[in-house]
Amino acid sequence: MIPRYSRPDMVAIWAPENRFRIWFEIEAHACDAQAELGVIPKEAAKAVWERGAWEIERIDEIERETKHDVIAFLTNLAEHVGPEARFVHQGMTSSDVLDTCLAVQLKQAADILLADLDQLLAALKKRALEHKMTMTVGRSHGIHAEPTTFGVKLAGFHAEFARNKARLEAARAEIATCAISGAVGSFAQIDPRVEEHVAAKLGLTPEPVSTQVIPRDRHAMFFGVLGVIASSIERLATEVRHLQRTEVREAEEYFSPGQKGSSAMPHKRNPVLTENLTGLARVVRSAVVPFMENVALWHERDISHSSVERLLAPDATVALDFALARLTSVVDKLVVYPEQMRKNLDSLGGLVNSQRVLLALTQAGLTREDAYAAVQRNAMPAWRGEGDFLTLLKNDPAIKGQVNHAQLDAMFDDAHHVKQVDTIFRRVFGEA
Amino acid sequence: MIPRYSRPDMVAIWAPENRFRIWFEIEAHACDAQAELGVIPKEAAKAVWERGAWEIERIDEIERETKHDVIAFLTNLAEHVGPEARFVHQGMTSSDVLDTCLAVQLKQAADILLADLDQLLAALKKRALEHKMTMTVGRSHGIHAEPTTFGVKLAGFHAEFARNKARLEAARAEIATCAISGAVGSFAQIDPRVEEHVAAKLGLTPEPVSTQVIPRDRHAMFFGVLGVIASSIERLATEVRHLQRTEVREAEEYFSPGQKGSSAMPHKRNPVLTENLTGLARVVRSAVVPFMENVALWHERDISHSSVERLLAPDATVALDFALARLTSVVDKLVVYPEQMRKNLDSLGGLVNSQRVLLALTQAGLTREDAYAAVQRNAMPAWRGEGDFLTLLKNDPAIKGQVNHAQLDAMFDDAHHVKQVDTIFRRVFGEA
Amino acid sequence: MIPRYSRPDMVAIWAPENRFRIWFEIEAHACDAQAELGVIPKEAAKAVWERGAWEIERIDEIERETKHDVIAFLTNLAEHVGPEARFVHQGMTSSDVLDTCLAVQLKQAADILLADLDQLLAALKKRALEHKMTMTVGRSHGIHAEPTTFGVKLAGFHAEFARNKARLEAARAEIATCAISGAVGSFAQIDPRVEEHVAAKLGLTPEPVSTQVIPRDRHAMFFGVLGVIASSIERLATEVRHLQRTEVREAEEYFSPGQKGSSAMPHKRNPVLTENLTGLARVVRSAVVPFMENVALWHERDISHSSVERLLAPDATVALDFALARLTSVVDKLVVYPEQMRKNLDSLGGLVNSQRVLLALTQAGLTREDAYAAVQRNAMPAWRGEGDFLTLLKNDPAIKGQVNHAQLDAMFDDAHHVKQVDTIFRRVFGEA
Amino acid sequence: MIPRYSRPDMVAIWAPENRFRIWFEIEAHACDAQAELGVIPKEAAKAVWERGAWEIERIDEIERETKHDVIAFLTNLAEHVGPEARFVHQGMTSSDVLDTCLAVQLKQAADILLADLDQLLAALKKRALEHKMTMTVGRSHGIHAEPTTFGVKLAGFHAEFARNKARLEAARAEIATCAISGAVGSFAQIDPRVEEHVAAKLGLTPEPVSTQVIPRDRHAMFFGVLGVIASSIERLATEVRHLQRTEVREAEEYFSPGQKGSSAMPHKRNPVLTENLTGLARVVRSAVVPFMENVALWHERDISHSSVERLLAPDATVALDFALARLTSVVDKLVVYPEQMRKNLDSLGGLVNSQRVLLALTQAGLTREDAYAAVQRNAMPAWRGEGDFLTLLKNDPAIKGQVNHAQLDAMFDDAHHVKQVDTIFRRVFGEA
Repeated sequence: MIPRYSRPDMVAIWAPENRFRIWFEIEAHACDAQAELGVIPKEAAKAVWERGAWEIERIDEIERETKHDVIAFLTNLAEHVGPEARFVHQGMTSSDVLDTCLAVQLKQAADILLADLDQLLAALKKRALEHKMTMTVGRSHGIHAEPTTFGVKLAGFHAEFARNKARLEAARAEIATCAISGAVGSFAQIDPRVEEHVAAKLGLTPEPVSTQVIPRDRHAMFFGVLGVIASSIERLATEVRHLQRTEVREAEEYFSPGQKGSSAMPHKRNPVLTENLTGLARVVRSAVVPFMENVALWHERDISHSSVERLLAPDATVALDFALARLTSVVDKLVVYPEQMRKNLDSLGGLVNSQRVLLALTQAGLTREDAYAAVQRNAMPAWRGEGDFLTLLKNDPAIKGQVNHAQLDAMFDDAHHVKQVDTIFRRVFGEA
Repeated sequence: MIPRYSRPDMVAIWAPENRFRIWFEIEAHACDAQAELGVIPKEAAKAVWERGAWEIERIDEIERETKHDVIAFLTNLAEHVGPEARFVHQGMTSSDVLDTCLAVQLKQAADILLADLDQLLAALKKRALEHKMTMTVGRSHGIHAEPTTFGVKLAGFHAEFARNKARLEAARAEIATCAISGAVGSFAQIDPRVEEHVAAKLGLTPEPVSTQVIPRDRHAMFFGVLGVIASSIERLATEVRHLQRTEVREAEEYFSPGQKGSSAMPHKRNPVLTENLTGLARVVRSAVVPFMENVALWHERDISHSSVERLLAPDATVALDFALARLTSVVDKLVVYPEQMRKNLDSLGGLVNSQRVLLALTQAGLTREDAYAAVQRNAMPAWRGEGDFLTLLKNDPAIKGQVNHAQLDAMFDDAHHVKQVDTIFRRVFGEA
Repeated sequence: MIPRYSRPDMVAIWAPENRFRIWFEIEAHACDAQAELGVIPKEAAKAVWERGAWEIERIDEIERETKHDVIAFLTNLAEHVGPEARFVHQGMTSSDVLDTCLAVQLKQAADILLADLDQLLAALKKRALEHKMTMTVGRSHGIHAEPTTFGVKLAGFHAEFARNKARLEAARAEIATCAISGAVGSFAQIDPRVEEHVAAKLGLTPEPVSTQVIPRDRHAMFFGVLGVIASSIERLATEVRHLQRTEVREAEEYFSPGQKGSSAMPHKRNPVLTENLTGLARVVRSAVVPFMENVALWHERDISHSSVERLLAPDATVALDFALARLTSVVDKLVVYPEQMRKNLDSLGGLVNSQRVLLALTQAGLTREDAYAAVQRNAMPAWRGEGDFLTLLKNDPAIKGQVNHAQLDAMFDDAHHVKQVDTIFRRVFGEA
Repeated sequence: MIPRYSRPDMVAIWAPENRFRIWFEIEAHACDAQAELGVIPKEAAKAVWERGAWEIERIDEIERETKHDVIAFLTNLAEHVGPEARFVHQGMTSSDVLDTCLAVQLKQAADILLADLDQLLAALKKRALEHKMTMTVGRSHGIHAEPTTFGVKLAGFHAEFARNKARLEAARAEIATCAISGAVGSFAQIDPRVEEHVAAKLGLTPEPVSTQVIPRDRHAMFFGVLGVIASSIERLATEVRHLQRTEVREAEEYFSPGQKGSSAMPHKRNPVLTENLTGLARVVRSAVVPFMENVALWHERDISHSSVERLLAPDATVALDFALARLTSVVDKLVVYPEQMRKNLDSLGGLVNSQRVLLALTQAGLTREDAYAAVQRNAMPAWRGEGDFLTLLKNDPAIKGQVNHAQLDAMFDDAHHVKQVDTIFRRVFGEA
């Protein structure tokens, strides 16, 4: 996490202020439940809420001696709460606080990411509708294939990010569990009703079996989903990078006044935002395997997961939040060149209709193999720039025998290729 | 995929026989729909079903020339079907066949894996119920913490694998889509109703936007879930490996008559199955990132994903199927030593009750810090084997002032630690 | 490993025939050394060489009972050697055989890969010299930057693969160690001179400290290097894919007669080989992390590494061998279009010379900032196709004041850009 | 990178202060060379050295407009240098500065890591010599195998980290290259002698072919080596974690006065440092794949690598520096319990000598298979605690016929197992 690729709301989730606030709430809510159960005095719970306070510097100072952050926090808290502080954390273990806190933080992070996805989806929808019928060439293998529309391209990305949103919602639900179960998760020193109370207050569900820790398969799944989202970002970023390359130039990232593309070459306007997104996708994805490696903790728990989470949970969520916002901006402001799309589409002189001719010939009675050969032998010279495809077809005796010139002309009509655009849009955006 | 770590049903999914059978069904079902729509003659569709046949060797032979496997298949098919073969594959592109086939194969693979998980869950439940009240020490950081039961350990794994089953069901639903949308996915040459028909026949749902290919975020998610499952396998395998180590020996993999543990040392009985599972988990997990890297195909598609899928889709599913079955067998036949669990549990002379004393002292009026210090100063000599913990506590003046000997004795009672086992089992297995 | 992406020599390294042959040689050479040391009778060693034989099926049969492959091999070997077989494997442990065998296999694999690299380097050099002065546009961010030559591009790849060769040579040396040290590597039952003898015979060096196993950091390094080589393959493959795209078409993979690019679109000629290489790079790279995870074996050894190695060592080396050979063929047969390179280079009307103008203006006295602004304000309209860059520059009053028309004309001369090509070639290929 | 897992010297390498200082030196040295070549006035170069200055805040401010960090730096530098500033960066491109700076930073980072390794090696050597003859049981699969010494264990780690040092030295040499070759690396606007001069001044070698950027296979190799080192750290950390577990307790991390092991259980002393190192190993390793994905930049360069490097180059080097230092401290202060090692070694009643009996029986004339069966049938009851191994052997008629009681007694002698310790130490530490 570095300022260059960070946004404040997501950064705040991982700041000590937020963490200690959540720790406090977990402890204070637990006190309420303990008081309700008669395990501790009601005044103690009240005192915690009323006098509870802490200072980050003081916590750090205590931790330098105890080498244990939760104990340091509790010690500092006790300095404020006074004698009743001995009723805080009763029957709980550090992980109850740490893991439940992480659940809250990841839930908060998921909420930001879900909002990011909503904005990206909105931008994609807006631009898709705008370019619903903007003709462009569809490419497979980087080679012109058949026509499509730029709107259909964007609709496909909308569908993909809608799937990502559903995945993240599922992962958010998975991660949002609460463990207040004590030393090895046995509830020996604390009633399960405390867990239920704290969970309800924090918007979590109780973890069915915590073994001191919340099981890490949940986190592995969460960061796995982040890796998939990052990969989708990379796909859209790659599309823009291709569209902007000099020979294609069908679309460009917005280039602001005063911006400089190169320190050496004043003519440059580079797709630096989407290149940056490509790199950030690699960064987010790099968290996936460590979180999977974190699953196999020893026995009821070891703490090897902790450093991975302290470092990579902020890094991956901050980078993904930044990337989604940047991508939304790229989509929103993308400069689209329909004329250039048209020009590129036409550049192969109608070769993109080769399949239609193939199908017509098979319908007319040729075998698939003969039809393929007939079309291919006329396509190859056209491909090399040695003649116009339609003219070549018209002059091929084998073809002439099957379809006439008027029929061939009709096969070079764009409208044919976009007749199902409505169907596709309906699938993605519903009736409109 | 090597025979050593393979089971035949999963291997069969990836065999050419199954692949070509699915290809044929896709083409034949598409012909039915095309005939129904009047695009091709009904006799043609009938002829495909009736005369459709193929030979793997012949397909390979044709592919050596065309360098295109679907064309090779269609050519071979045409040799059997005859002239009507020209109506096969009308308006379709190879990816319609390949991607829909992969969806079917992954669905089949998921079904096997889901059945594997069911068997593992059954074995875990059986052994969990069997050892519901078998006392054992809970360990954090590999260090004795507090008592729990071996059944609770297994119940936790049951809950984890139940989550994995839910994840795989979701991933199976995600992956089970059908694309019959033609070149660049525009439906220009083929009616969307063909896709709907084929999807219905194969138990798939139509892909909302295919861009010639089914978008690869679906596959990334699928193999991401496999990586999580593999990591859970590693966790359970690691637990068994720990339990079997010489100094612990609370459980052992079943060692069959005639088995040899070492070529050099006849006394050895090693946890080789769970060590093997640890390695297989690494293998399955290694597929996660490549499938994420596959997402960012260029434009409407490139074929970089194909080699990853041809190699790693079989490898990962076969290894995971094998691993789940092996793990089920390990759990099922695990030799458990309750007496040794008891012996280990007692080996620290009751130190595992330190928290109870701590809590009692705070309840009696000590601050948390004073109570902690009082317990710790008696625990440390006991830890070093310099005295019995309970005796030391009874002799500590600061403690004597707060709790009496009878109260201390009562704190060294096992039943306390397992009083919520029923609650935990209810959470995992429901009422029983 | 599947036939589609395999070559026979590398596959043979991992076949049972080769493995058992190496096992036999290790055992037989060890017998020679033991006999020399007087530990076993010389006749026994002689008998092993003379009567030593084995059958794969029989080994498999025995292993099904013993569940231990080395014991199964030794048992089968004993069936052939007779009573003297009891002197085989004296003081050795399975890992002495397995790990030393793996070292030999990886050494053999490295030799094939090094030969592959030599052939690739030869192809790159040949094509680099051929196109040493073939002008083409250099691109940063996919955007035209300044001219270079196609030969310089290839020279850069040559330098990169020469580095890869050096890395692989180092990794080969690292991996080529021999361990014959017994149960926990203590040499308690076997003299270190046996190890020295076997090592010398097999072209290995003795492992300084084996702990029953050869330490796995060596293997992690080896497969790490394979991952780097795969990434370099991806870079060259990506370059070709870009050059072949319809709008660029500066080079194309060789397209053989009879080849078909698409089942639907007869006009297609796709860069499928380099797309395939891109995928194979992901596959090879996926082995890197598992081999790193293999390093942390428990205590003197556990066997979790074994399944990773059985599966991924063949897979990664076979895929890389195939990929290097395919890449060599792509480079060797690459169809290059110098005229199209020239056409693309000229397509921005000399914008690629913007830096030269910038430098001239600063030399003439403008600040860098003013010079940059002057060039950029003329470049942007030219970029948009609204005027010729040189003409615009000539008409800009601020520029006119600093450099005259003749000077500007001279800045649009290609020769300037290639004046150091000789220097670069000398750095890569030496004097010639 | 977070303070918790950071050390100041490594952090300083990645601070803006160091980066801008290096940028300045690159530019200023380049000016010297340019002046020497007569491209710019000597006074200009002098002015740069004399008046060169910059302010981080001002650079940030300018970058917000230009969106280009090198231009922002140059602009700010120009504000200090004055008119001669127009001679700075002549013929250079940003990457010349950025990539050469990164090379310097990675070289600096490597120097710290090499020093870290030296300290770790020193600690390992000291403790290895200290425990050269401390008997302990060697374990394979977590199961007692045969005796070894604790010093031999440590010597093995020393050998492994010595290999890591050699790898890092090679990676440092690879990464330490300088590129001052201008846009697309053609040297069109800058003489190669400038590069040579700057390289010499900064302790780098000229990059043979830079394509505007230094090729990223070098960085992939560098971070690949870091991943291997991290994996070795994980291996040693795992060893300590095992030794400290309650049932083994052969060694312990130093536990400082005032330290608290658990917020709930005052008796706990956990191997938290080595668990932490296990997690940090995962973190460092997670950088390996992204740096490999960075290799395949598009054409002469794209900037997707940049975000990966800005984030993960500091993160991985800082984490590894911290981890190496922490590991050194763990080794240095490790509390070793030789009595407990002895106790564990004896706990199986001499079963660890099973191989010696096996070998003696084969030497006496039994086949390997019969000897194995004879030893195994006596080992298994001893393993289960049903009898003493030596006594059982003495009572087995089949064994009695081959070796007598005195011979059997002699096989249970420890000295036998450590007779080659000197050999092993000589291999690792040389004569002494």
